[in-house]
Amino acid sequence: MSSTFGTLFRVTTFGESHCPGVGVVVDGCPPRMALTEGDIQPQLDRRRPGQSRLTTDRNEADRVQILSGVENGTTLGTPLALFVANRDVRPSDYKAMADIPRPSHADYTYQAKYGIRASSGGGRSSARETVGRVAAGAVAEKFLSERFGVSIVAWVEAVGSIRSEAVDIETVDRSRVDAAPVRCPDPAAAARMTERIQEIKEAGDSAGGVVACVCRNVPAGWGEPVFDKMEACLARAMMSIPATKGFEIGSGFAGTRMQGSAHNDPFVWKAGGLGTKTNYSGGVQGGISNGEPIVFRVAFKPVATIGLSQQTVDFKGKPVTFTAKGRHDPCVVPRAVPIVEAMAALVLADLALRQGARP
Amino acid sequence: MSSTFGTLFRVTTFGESHCPGVGVVVDGCPPRMALTEGDIQPQLDRRRPGQSRLTTDRNEADRVQILSGVENGTTLGTPLALFVANRDVRPSDYKAMADIPRPSHADYTYQAKYGIRASSGGGRSSARETVGRVAAGAVAEKFLSERFGVSIVAWVEAVGSIRSEAVDIETVDRSRVDAAPVRCPDPAAAARMTERIQEIKEAGDSAGGVVACVCRNVPAGWGEPVFDKMEACLARAMMSIPATKGFEIGSGFAGTRMQGSAHNDPFVWKAGGLGTKTNYSGGVQGGISNGEPIVFRVAFKPVATIGLSQQTVDFKGKPVTFTAKGRHDPCVVPRAVPIVEAMAALVLADLALRQGARP
Amino acid sequence: MSSTFGTLFRVTTFGESHCPGVGVVVDGCPPRMALTEGDIQPQLDRRRPGQSRLTTDRNEADRVQILSGVENGTTLGTPLALFVANRDVRPSDYKAMADIPRPSHADYTYQAKYGIRASSGGGRSSARETVGRVAAGAVAEKFLSERFGVSIVAWVEAVGSIRSEAVDIETVDRSRVDAAPVRCPDPAAAARMTERIQEIKEAGDSAGGVVACVCRNVPAGWGEPVFDKMEACLARAMMSIPATKGFEIGSGFAGTRMQGSAHNDPFVWKAGGLGTKTNYSGGVQGGISNGEPIVFRVAFKPVATIGLSQQTVDFKGKPVTFTAKGRHDPCVVPRAVPIVEAMAALVLADLALRQGARP
Amino acid sequence: MSSTFGTLFRVTTFGESHCPGVGVVVDGCPPRMALTEGDIQPQLDRRRPGQSRLTTDRNEADRVQILSGVENGTTLGTPLALFVANRDVRPSDYKAMADIPRPSHADYTYQAKYGIRASSGGGRSSARETVGRVAAGAVAEKFLSERFGVSIVAWVEAVGSIRSEAVDIETVDRSRVDAAPVRCPDPAAAARMTERIQEIKEAGDSAGGVVACVCRNVPAGWGEPVFDKMEACLARAMMSIPATKGFEIGSGFAGTRMQGSAHNDPFVWKAGGLGTKTNYSGGVQGGISNGEPIVFRVAFKPVATIGLSQQTVDFKGKPVTFTAKGRHDPCVVPRAVPIVEAMAALVLADLALRQGARP
Repeated sequence: MSSTFGTLFRVTTFGESHCPGVGVVVDGCPPRMALTEGDIQPQLDRRRPGQSRLTTDRNEADRVQILSGVENGTTLGTPLALFVANRDVRPSDYKAMADIPRPSHADYTYQAKYGIRASSGGGRSSARETVGRVAAGAVAEKFLSERFGVSIVAWVEAVGSIRSEAVDIETVDRSRVDAAPVRCPDPAAAARMTERIQEIKEAGDSAGGVVACVCRNVPAGWGEPVFDKMEACLARAMMSIPATKGFEIGSGFAGTRMQGSAHNDPFVWKAGGLGTKTNYSGGVQGGISNGEPIVFRVAFKPVATIGLSQQTVDFKGKPVTFTAKGRHDPCVVPRAVPIVEAMAALVLADLALRQGARP
Repeated sequence: MSSTFGTLFRVTTFGESHCPGVGVVVDGCPPRMALTEGDIQPQLDRRRPGQSRLTTDRNEADRVQILSGVENGTTLGTPLALFVANRDVRPSDYKAMADIPRPSHADYTYQAKYGIRASSGGGRSSARETVGRVAAGAVAEKFLSERFGVSIVAWVEAVGSIRSEAVDIETVDRSRVDAAPVRCPDPAAAARMTERIQEIKEAGDSAGGVVACVCRNVPAGWGEPVFDKMEACLARAMMSIPATKGFEIGSGFAGTRMQGSAHNDPFVWKAGGLGTKTNYSGGVQGGISNGEPIVFRVAFKPVATIGLSQQTVDFKGKPVTFTAKGRHDPCVVPRAVPIVEAMAALVLADLALRQGARP
Repeated sequence: MSSTFGTLFRVTTFGESHCPGVGVVVDGCPPRMALTEGDIQPQLDRRRPGQSRLTTDRNEADRVQILSGVENGTTLGTPLALFVANRDVRPSDYKAMADIPRPSHADYTYQAKYGIRASSGGGRSSARETVGRVAAGAVAEKFLSERFGVSIVAWVEAVGSIRSEAVDIETVDRSRVDAAPVRCPDPAAAARMTERIQEIKEAGDSAGGVVACVCRNVPAGWGEPVFDKMEACLARAMMSIPATKGFEIGSGFAGTRMQGSAHNDPFVWKAGGLGTKTNYSGGVQGGISNGEPIVFRVAFKPVATIGLSQQTVDFKGKPVTFTAKGRHDPCVVPRAVPIVEAMAALVLADLALRQGARP
Repeated sequence: MSSTFGTLFRVTTFGESHCPGVGVVVDGCPPRMALTEGDIQPQLDRRRPGQSRLTTDRNEADRVQILSGVENGTTLGTPLALFVANRDVRPSDYKAMADIPRPSHADYTYQAKYGIRASSGGGRSSARETVGRVAAGAVAEKFLSERFGVSIVAWVEAVGSIRSEAVDIETVDRSRVDAAPVRCPDPAAAARMTERIQEIKEAGDSAGGVVACVCRNVPAGWGEPVFDKMEACLARAMMSIPATKGFEIGSGFAGTRMQGSAHNDPFVWKAGGLGTKTNYSGGVQGGISNGEPIVFRVAFKPVATIGLSQQTVDFKGKPVTFTAKGRHDPCVVPRAVPIVEAMAALVLADLALRQGARP
């Protein structure tokens, strides 16, 4: 249950890592929007495995096919079904793991929940499930960009303890983000991050990191009090991405150490209306966008699959030394960048439609 | 829209800060459960204003009344309507603010969204809205406790930069939490926090803080992949509480700086089944509970209403010096403790029923 | 569960027949709409018991109170809580029935479902639950009328086998409907219906009937394919009213006996655009309104509570002769008229907002 | 929007009549259930066009493919994606209709709603959309049959004014239904219906009809008061099928002419518990199943596409004589039988899970 996200712009993903394919149905996409596979493929390419030596060796072209909802390159307002075949599947890698729940993976919890689990590749808990999100997110982003001029840019802010603080949220764009495969638009930090990931990969270990994201040109008024506040929707969206452990908006945890007199964002007059002098709020007040850039961060844990041996127990409790097979990323954050952007787009498109419904 | 939360255990709150009252409808509460106002009142008492010198002077007894769904002290399985009257309302305090959007409040964004806003007290953006959540949460908690032995305990982990690290998540309980009005169960930290809040109050300023929470005895298997992962639901729930800026589960942001070999939680055999040796995961894997304690933290910004004057502009952009009237807390985290517990209970009760539906 | 109806204009009802009161929360009501209790009370007055000698003797003034969501007579866009106290409650009437499930009532099924049931008055299955619907419907209707000029009029088309076929759907209005307490705007038929109900009442028996409804000035384009087609939403709404057994739109069951060449509604040019020459479709095509009047009918079974003795068995299967106590209507359709209107308004308001969300 | 149906057993259909294909995602299907394409294909075969001379000439093999959610012939509890390619597509048939909204079709209303519509074949309003429903319904039915012994059988009760009243709801099964291509299990009536359809087909006209359905062995207690009553859910489900104009349960419209003393269903003791002597209620009381067979009827209008010429106007209002091209059924009810069964199964599976969630 609950592979569906959104109220009016509504996506339903499907597919395991090792079944015929993965995909998504997008219900509620506005009609009369130009749309082809070419609008969706670029973000899938940024997400796909095998795109650089920093990522997993699994090699998937991840070509998307639009199965419905578009005619002559234009959306009909009916459900879009978007499909990507799974090709480079090697279930044999997983045979040895049948009896051993991988530490910090979902093998044990899926078994506890369903009484069954996919025999290989992580099934629905695999990051492969995010293919559908990224495809749908590309559609949402196109809508937001064309109708409202919204731009969404995410980047790697930290890999392990290497952190960039030199990114300008007013100007950062995807070309700068993609200048380095690690997707940090700060070249000096990017170089150190790349080096660090390679060291960790060689050591058979893995790293975590932080992805930051800014959404610009979001009009004031989006976000639905009480339970669907902008920040609540974003938090849910981000914390639904595999391997996430934290979310913060605006000043976040650091802001808890400030005093109100410093943290409050005074209003100032900007072109066309009210703005704020500072943006500790991160673009939201009371759960509603205020017109300032929406800025948030997402914490990703170090990848659970590592080359090093681990002491653990099998399903029956027998101690074993476990050494993972299967292909994996040493650090997931570079590929998480388009996933974070996609989830942000899905949240914003839905809240845009919901606010649009208010007469 | 969207004052409703939950799929099967479903709550809908209503009420502004200065209307006849606030409340909640709970649809999906299990039948045949003993329930009286006495089960709900204690958590409301922990939330209510005026309970200590650390909180706002607004004085509300906040007596709850069960309007429906219970007969002879037993739930019927039909909607519970729970109501709390607003009594100590002073709209005159807000007259001067009609033309000035308070910095870091929701005055401006509500106006942008709705083209109208409550003339006093913050309306729905007021923390008063959480009365309904706390009342509903008490019902959810009773269900969880009686059917599953789940216990939920939150506490103040930090006030500004004063942080307690001496709380034992295995044993902490509400009596220890409530030993000091600041609701930190670490007496040394509590003393410093209290002192700090008083200094800040006297200075006419405000403080932020962090609330931590543990949910014990949650069975393995709760949480719905993909978009309703346990951590996604908790994140949304917590980030829907007014004044929150961040959420983390388990190792959170700190975990991003660890390597996989250290961060992975190896399985061990515990009484009755598999457990994990460490709990960096925070009780969830792949969005599903694993039977270990669920541990998370919520960041609260410093209260936006402060006594100090602020330079800002009015709705038309004219610079003004703004000095707040109205009553407010210098630091909300002590009163946020039962709210965090309530939202955790609402999430868990819903996920419990949803897992219970799975044959 | 599922006392909630609607996606964007969303109502949640609560309350049993014999608890402190009944009511509704309306979430998603547009802001900046003039609204007072005076806008809601008239429809409640048309629904209330004791309004004529054709209805039950239970006497409830059913004065509605707006608990939230309105300030200075204007909606804030936040949830409206509307409450009506239960006053004329006589649980003693139901003592004798504790062990006997009343034939064609919900006593047995509620017990089977919940393992418990309200000890008197039918609880949630009582028509008293519809108070909240009628209150919410009055709000929806005001919105529809002011923004779109929509008018909704229902009337009694049949009582038992007495049927009126002389009602003009273009002109029928509530004053004509209410000219006779039986709420049939065809005076000749109304007289016969009234006489029939009185005969049946005197015989200790009950009658069923049919309520017809027309919604005029609904713009083309409302209704959401596939599962929320206009007719699907109306059908669900109507069949959720207690005692309903059938729904038909446009030509309904009679239309199944026509041939396509006669049943098709040819298009013609009307002022401002396309219309249809005939309206066998009942104002909808493919689930979407076409601008013609939406016309439907709802079947109500004869009231289950009758004065005559009935041979049945108790909960343990022991044969008993059952004679009902408690107050009841001999025929529910006159009071069902405002309920049908309310449910139609709730459907239309929701579909209006949903279509308004489509850019 | 709203191609999604169900709360816990939740389906989302996609696809137009003339795009690459049609399908459905089923979220919430129970895990550990044996499932292959062979379980789904038979109902699709009963629905597919070209199966007899009574149906449209469009020839689609409609082979279903399971894209996800099943491994080694067993469901994983994750979303099932089921896909059927469109093959026999002839968009050229529709060229001439670009400027003319077909009478009693959805061309005009889709255009009014979306500002665009599929250029051929009816798009989402085509009966082809029901492929996904039938596929999903077959899965739901397997679950209901295996876990609860529920059986669902629909049949053609009337074609035009030819009506069968000789069907025994206790024993009717699909083999008897399918004995004649017209799917009426009453051989005498079937013969007359077949003859009638052929006459009408030869005349270039079309017929309507009624499908009846019985659901046996549904346990007491399914159905969610208030708005998701069993009959409300069934009504919505049935009225969401293209070409439906009416729904009735139990005594339906005929029951409105009875008196309570005759219509009430007295309780009697049956093997294992309470049952009712008669079943005018149609297996539901107060929206909840009572253990008796659930019996309902669905009215289908005569097919809108006919061979005869029609006088109508084009989109600009210009009078035209319209003669349809494209392939169509002279009477849809034989093919509607598996669709009605599918929608019934989807309703019951969802209500079964929802009741199962109630502790």
